[in-house]
Amino acid sequence: MSTVPDLQFEIVARDACSHARCGILHLPHGDVETPVFMPVGTQGTVKAMTQEELEALDFRIILCNTYHLYLRPGHERVARAGGLHRFIAWHRNILTDSGGFQVFSLQALRRVYEDGVEFRSHLDGSTHYFTPERAIAVQHALGADIIMAFDECPPNPSSYEQARAAMERTHRWAVRCLQAHDTAQALFGIVQGSVYEDLRAESARFISELDFPGIAIGGVAVGEEKAEIHRVVAFTAPLLPVEKPRYLMGVGEPDDILQAVACGVDMFDCVLPTRLARNAAMMTRRGRVNLRNARFAEEFGPVDPECDCPVCQRYSAAYLHHLFKAKEILAARLATFHNLYFYQRFMAQIRRAIREGNLEQFRGEFLQSYTPEQEPVPREE
Amino acid sequence: MSTVPDLQFEIVARDACSHARCGILHLPHGDVETPVFMPVGTQGTVKAMTQEELEALDFRIILCNTYHLYLRPGHERVARAGGLHRFIAWHRNILTDSGGFQVFSLQALRRVYEDGVEFRSHLDGSTHYFTPERAIAVQHALGADIIMAFDECPPNPSSYEQARAAMERTHRWAVRCLQAHDTAQALFGIVQGSVYEDLRAESARFISELDFPGIAIGGVAVGEEKAEIHRVVAFTAPLLPVEKPRYLMGVGEPDDILQAVACGVDMFDCVLPTRLARNAAMMTRRGRVNLRNARFAEEFGPVDPECDCPVCQRYSAAYLHHLFKAKEILAARLATFHNLYFYQRFMAQIRRAIREGNLEQFRGEFLQSYTPEQEPVPREE
Repeated sequence: MSTVPDLQFEIVARDACSHARCGILHLPHGDVETPVFMPVGTQGTVKAMTQEELEALDFRIILCNTYHLYLRPGHERVARAGGLHRFIAWHRNILTDSGGFQVFSLQALRRVYEDGVEFRSHLDGSTHYFTPERAIAVQHALGADIIMAFDECPPNPSSYEQARAAMERTHRWAVRCLQAHDTAQALFGIVQGSVYEDLRAESARFISELDFPGIAIGGVAVGEEKAEIHRVVAFTAPLLPVEKPRYLMGVGEPDDILQAVACGVDMFDCVLPTRLARNAAMMTRRGRVNLRNARFAEEFGPVDPECDCPVCQRYSAAYLHHLFKAKEILAARLATFHNLYFYQRFMAQIRRAIREGNLEQFRGEFLQSYTPEQEPVPREE
Repeated sequence: MSTVPDLQFEIVARDACSHARCGILHLPHGDVETPVFMPVGTQGTVKAMTQEELEALDFRIILCNTYHLYLRPGHERVARAGGLHRFIAWHRNILTDSGGFQVFSLQALRRVYEDGVEFRSHLDGSTHYFTPERAIAVQHALGADIIMAFDECPPNPSSYEQARAAMERTHRWAVRCLQAHDTAQALFGIVQGSVYEDLRAESARFISELDFPGIAIGGVAVGEEKAEIHRVVAFTAPLLPVEKPRYLMGVGEPDDILQAVACGVDMFDCVLPTRLARNAAMMTRRGRVNLRNARFAEEFGPVDPECDCPVCQRYSAAYLHHLFKAKEILAARLATFHNLYFYQRFMAQIRRAIREGNLEQFRGEFLQSYTPEQEPVPREE
């Protein structure tokens, strides 16, 4: 039903020893090199950052949340502003999720029907109703470059029957989303199936056969163990059409990204670098460090001596420690900038490793010195 | 007792119709053109700003608070970092207050003796004791370019007897501060005397006769009516030595600054632009506007169409309204940047008007369109 040719995705390099590939997403607001990490701008702002800083860090696409923007400021207001790009003054690409993940996270505040989901606003308790058609209409009003199908995201753990029911509804809703879609925005489908390989295989097959220009793996960042995420991704990603971009929703940690890239995933989003930053955790080549820790009180050198970001070039760990203790806005700002710089450099290293044919070597070296955290990302945004 | 020549203050232009003048403060971390507005970096950061942004806005001097930095991170830690400039990575000038104003503001938490003031930390309730010698020693450790004498700042209203006692103690303490001072930092004296003209005259005479390279008017931003502040400044400033820089502490609003400049004041500091910004108030040529106001919800143009700051050039009032409603850090960031830009442009306009001999005309034009607020600055930092 789309009125213009599908999104153009060009694969420019493939890894010989894995499913990894480098590509270029040709989108209305500029090209995006993949594998790509998309920072999360829940309410139309990547928390603590300006759009100028995101540009300086060379982000070409950010994610915004339909659920949040629908409630505030409202998709109709955004449409009157001329769309989300103009409203937030971000002239590069935007991906909006469908609201499904947030609405299903509301737990006590929502009721699921075959037709859609009734939910109550976390802001004022008002009642709302999202159907696949409504989720698409809201995303049309927001006007992002990539929009997502409205899916049912089951909790973890889910029984096999629960997972199957959610998957089947996701499939019926995927068809309805496609039928409701009539703009030039690229609408991505979402594979569900929880941790069950036969369901993931069935969902991958069903969604792949529909006319989506890109496909996401959903429901994998909802509380599983790391090994479980890795297993599901390793199983599912290679089942998706090789010529379409693959997007792993809500992931993740650098080691998760490395693993998923090797499985052929092209796109990632996660609140991790920004949320961690506001909780005083900064990413380094060796793993996370917590700047509130007393060991930084008199560390007058940079947080990460190996980092060439403007924060580490100018400010000391002791100053950041002080700013976090004093609850200063600058703490969140500097830590967020540093963490996003870390992710951008990391993704660039991954792309180069794929192009140069040494992804496995890069991954081995990276994981040798990097200690992944087992703690979950703190909830907050 | 200072080990190097006094601070150099060069007067480069005088207004014919008032006491106003343009000058250059030659300080260790660069020249500062006066009249100058110093943004307040209470805890070693101008709230919501980076040091890079302050440089981009061409601020040459900021104020930091001795009381706050003494308590956290501690002046000794700052000294071990190599001083405040290195600790906060600000390579331009810094002025520290003496802690007197904050300590006297603690009201229930302090006890005043002839020797000094005992007070309890607002952070942890611990007991501390500041004498003039101690306040100077702490400021030596911080290492600012300009430091302030430890004074007794009486509340408003104060009885004549209260005001006289505080002034006399301020004078005795001023002598002790000078005796304790043995670094190349420029130590400024402070004139007190509350709203009483004979006390202000006596204090101006006493402080002017001491060997201070600069003189501040203290105790004028402690709750008086605007007209009262104007009267005290108009009376006191011309009594100070014409060759020394004059600093009006804690003021103020644009109209207050204009009035004080005409009385011959050279230096200002105030939390107004930064604190207002965090409370959604943005300064415009017509007065303050509150971005939380519903009238901005669909104002898709800039906050101030006459403003050429990067915020007004890129972001809409509707977006700022949304960011404030959503309590996003970016709201405080953009509003703070805009307000500080407003102050810098305003001070540059004042300096140009003095140089070009039309300060009265500029003042008249400015006050014709600018509506000063009568509301006090919200307390918070």
